[in-house]
Amino acid sequence: MKNQFDTILLGHGSGGKLTHDLIEGLFAKYFDNDILRQQSDSAIIPLDGKQVAFTTDSFVVDPLFFPGGDIGKLAIAGTVNDLAVSGAVPQYLSCGFIIEEGLPFSTLEKVVKSMAEESKNAGILIVTGDTKVVDRGKCDKVFINTSGIGVLDKKHQQISSGSGIEIGDKIIINGSIGDHGMAVMAARNELNISANIQSDCACLNEMIGDVLKVSNQVKFMRDATRGGLGTVLSELVKGSPFGIQINETDLVINEGVRGMCELLGFDPLYVANEGKVVMAVGKDDAENILRSIKKNRFGRDAAIIGEITGDHQGRAWLQTIVGGKRVIEMLSGQQLPRIC
Amino acid sequence: MKNQFDTILLGHGSGGKLTHDLIEGLFAKYFDNDILRQQSDSAIIPLDGKQVAFTTDSFVVDPLFFPGGDIGKLAIAGTVNDLAVSGAVPQYLSCGFIIEEGLPFSTLEKVVKSMAEESKNAGILIVTGDTKVVDRGKCDKVFINTSGIGVLDKKHQQISSGSGIEIGDKIIINGSIGDHGMAVMAARNELNISANIQSDCACLNEMIGDVLKVSNQVKFMRDATRGGLGTVLSELVKGSPFGIQINETDLVINEGVRGMCELLGFDPLYVANEGKVVMAVGKDDAENILRSIKKNRFGRDAAIIGEITGDHQGRAWLQTIVGGKRVIEMLSGQQLPRIC
Repeated sequence: MKNQFDTILLGHGSGGKLTHDLIEGLFAKYFDNDILRQQSDSAIIPLDGKQVAFTTDSFVVDPLFFPGGDIGKLAIAGTVNDLAVSGAVPQYLSCGFIIEEGLPFSTLEKVVKSMAEESKNAGILIVTGDTKVVDRGKCDKVFINTSGIGVLDKKHQQISSGSGIEIGDKIIINGSIGDHGMAVMAARNELNISANIQSDCACLNEMIGDVLKVSNQVKFMRDATRGGLGTVLSELVKGSPFGIQINETDLVINEGVRGMCELLGFDPLYVANEGKVVMAVGKDDAENILRSIKKNRFGRDAAIIGEITGDHQGRAWLQTIVGGKRVIEMLSGQQLPRIC
Repeated sequence: MKNQFDTILLGHGSGGKLTHDLIEGLFAKYFDNDILRQQSDSAIIPLDGKQVAFTTDSFVVDPLFFPGGDIGKLAIAGTVNDLAVSGAVPQYLSCGFIIEEGLPFSTLEKVVKSMAEESKNAGILIVTGDTKVVDRGKCDKVFINTSGIGVLDKKHQQISSGSGIEIGDKIIINGSIGDHGMAVMAARNELNISANIQSDCACLNEMIGDVLKVSNQVKFMRDATRGGLGTVLSELVKGSPFGIQINETDLVINEGVRGMCELLGFDPLYVANEGKVVMAVGKDDAENILRSIKKNRFGRDAAIIGEITGDHQGRAWLQTIVGGKRVIEMLSGQQLPRIC
């Protein structure tokens, strides 16, 4: 591949620009096929006449346990959400463990219990798995891969590509941003911060399923994980004939997150979430959809935060509180390594 | 879980007895459901009225490159074979990379190229993926998870459980044993062995597909990977009303593999293969099936190596060359860490 770097950098796993370059320049180049080219959170595959969503995610979060979650809960929620935002009903998960020799059983059991609990809550089944153990010092405690399968109703198959988006569509997010990233950051031993921040890590399939029941005006969904809300918005309009305007006044940022971001020099727009879905929805049905989201415990702080515009084509813009405008670029470089 | 150990040992990833104990005592206990309880290489899941095979495998082989293959080829073949031995037609793969910061791009590209080539050969598509990067020293170069989906014809749905097995059924394997494990072992730097051993790493879906076309007498298939042929045989009859007798004279063991096993004190019966399928087939159709396998380039040394017996219930036995009999137990402890 044509690359500026000779070696893999932490930023290649950031979910931002470097990750994109790696996908485009390496994986997409060699694995090239029509389905992979969709490049959405889940691949939509034809399977014996049905449309099926299929996705995979590896989890390497450090530390394993943090306020509001742990690597196990994350591994379930991350993959369930990737399926749900494609418009599919998540049904089955696989899980692959890579474990460091010497990991206490009790730690592994705690993680496995958490996965069992979270998958039960989400109504999905873990049906197959794999366990590898590597020698001490060759991985960091435990890494988990979950892959997932869901069934996609034909009427929702445009959601993952966002091909139905129109000017005037409203942008909705189901609550505050930056909680997960800052919760993990605060939990790291090296930081002596006692911020009262909880990760938003949660399975959103029930909430999303309810929305899809009450409206056929959901044009696009994406969970704003690595790279944060900013990266999702920037990706959504990249190369498209639309722009996005987001109003800073409508963004919910919890006090602790705001403070920690200021302290550490992070922009909450790019901090990872693990329980937030960004939707583009038809403007006439936006309030109806918002009501449905707010009924769910993971959507209480949901808000319409902006809209699809005809100007600023290919770009996302933030209308700031003080009245200025700034471009929302894709995250460049690495913000927080091993956040998921 | 009731366990004898407080920490995870390398042996928990061996594919043998400790792996089984971990699955039974931890994963199966907490994730418990009917599909997981099948405990075969692929889960057979009902998906919108269809039977679908779903499987996952993580690859941590060390070194990344070895005679006859590399981690990329292995990651494709391993998952394709898990689907194929369940009787399914492998169709789609996901791949999840965990990469160590500082890995040369050229190394990653070589692995990705190999995956692309092998998946093309096998006629399957890589449709979705994920990339994580961890800081230097927190993983070993690159780990790869592949998960896979295949469609299962209803008439083959008994294969993965082996529930159709009868006394008199013949046991077939498609060639020599122990090649993969010894090739990886020889490639390790610490061993100064110049044995001319090639890994048997290969996708067997074409060969298996051909067999299923010519015969409806395939009762069971399993690929003999970690834990080797011995562990597959021992698992197959564990708790069943049948026994298995294997004739040592019919086992093919390449000269280099035999020599290296003797030198290092390994039993080839428990050394990993990555291109070997063990079948139990109806006795009247065994020769027909063998002919079909031998036509494939991965089946030239195929042989009928034994049969299902009414005696020795629940046990696999080796009829040795010198005329003795010995029980084939499941691999206990760890034989070769990070072999796949």
